[in-house]
Amino acid sequence: MTSDSSILDELFGVIASRKGTDPDKSYTAKLFARGRGKIAQKFGEEAVETVVAALSEGKEELVGESADALYHLLVLWADCGVEPGRVWAELSRRAGTSGIDEKKSRAKK
Amino acid sequence: MTSDSSILDELFGVIASRKGTDPDKSYTAKLFARGRGKIAQKFGEEAVETVVAALSEGKEELVGESADALYHLLVLWADCGVEPGRVWAELSRRAGTSGIDEKKSRAKK
Amino acid sequence: MTSDSSILDELFGVIASRKGTDPDKSYTAKLFARGRGKIAQKFGEEAVETVVAALSEGKEELVGESADALYHLLVLWADCGVEPGRVWAELSRRAGTSGIDEKKSRAKK
Amino acid sequence: MTSDSSILDELFGVIASRKGTDPDKSYTAKLFARGRGKIAQKFGEEAVETVVAALSEGKEELVGESADALYHLLVLWADCGVEPGRVWAELSRRAGTSGIDEKKSRAKK
Repeated sequence: MTSDSSILDELFGVIASRKGTDPDKSYTAKLFARGRGKIAQKFGEEAVETVVAALSEGKEELVGESADALYHLLVLWADCGVEPGRVWAELSRRAGTSGIDEKKSRAKK
Repeated sequence: MTSDSSILDELFGVIASRKGTDPDKSYTAKLFARGRGKIAQKFGEEAVETVVAALSEGKEELVGESADALYHLLVLWADCGVEPGRVWAELSRRAGTSGIDEKKSRAKK
Repeated sequence: MTSDSSILDELFGVIASRKGTDPDKSYTAKLFARGRGKIAQKFGEEAVETVVAALSEGKEELVGESADALYHLLVLWADCGVEPGRVWAELSRRAGTSGIDEKKSRAKK
Repeated sequence: MTSDSSILDELFGVIASRKGTDPDKSYTAKLFARGRGKIAQKFGEEAVETVVAALSEGKEELVGESADALYHLLVLWADCGVEPGRVWAELSRRAGTSGIDEKKSRAKK
């Protein structure tokens, strides 16, 4: 597989193809079988581990936990029927022509 | 800007260029000025909002909260000196030749 | 009000009495009006702030964020129709006669 | 043990007494041995599970996850040297004479 950001799209493709397959055959299929609550929970837990890695561990741990968080986020998108392209488009839209910062500021309540 | 996954690398470049600039000029610069604890907190909060959006809101909200979470994750990487490429490489390594699921399974404690 | 642990029961009583009252009159009533997703989100966010306070701030911040987290947890219980006594009983049951640690160990997957 | 809110103070006493004891003898001692990052992480993860239980599971799961979250919050307080009484006092102070809601509103940024 590639090792630039398109790995996210590739991984999403693999993950989506696991939907409805035998839960005993793969971790991803098992996650889908356990349902959205469990998938969302795993993403939330890995996000917490990412926070902790950033604050009290090293770069390597941050890389590893970030990868875990992103993987589970992709599973969550797949379970909810959200294509990664929609998120890339949203990030692109916000970044826009006038700079991300201004858009971000306006977006916050 | 592009609207495929390379938006993440582009955004990271913009974010990293904000380090040490005037906090009054951009939301990103303000985040850097407030420190790693605050950046990690924002990522964690947006991750929680992503979980809630997946479980009790719609696709559009999930897209929006995911974008927020990813943006703050990029800021956290920048603050910790982690290049996105390291995370893409880690995801690629795990996906590997023998499939992501097996690797994931082994990686879990 | 008292300032021992029974403050939690007292607060719960006040919180529960706000259900269905005018959202413009109190923060708690507004939370109930915004629904369970928003209440759960607020608890999750305050929990993240508690984690960050413990890892990169001081005791005073930890006390403040813990209080925020507990307050929103009480609102969540009230919204879900869970009496605090059920949680105290569950904690007591686990602590039991043979010590909390053994029970905890067994409870973990 | 009691099964009203004072169970929290009782549990805290038991937890605090585990500090520095043999990690092989109890789950709590093991948590202390693994350090504050791990303790904070466990609390954050249980908080996420509480959020998920409230949104997509039943009351019994919410009670169980809330108990887990509270137990790990007590361990975090013990590790940081925060007595539960400080949090009860803070909650009591906020509730105060003029009502919790007004205090909460003012406290939010």
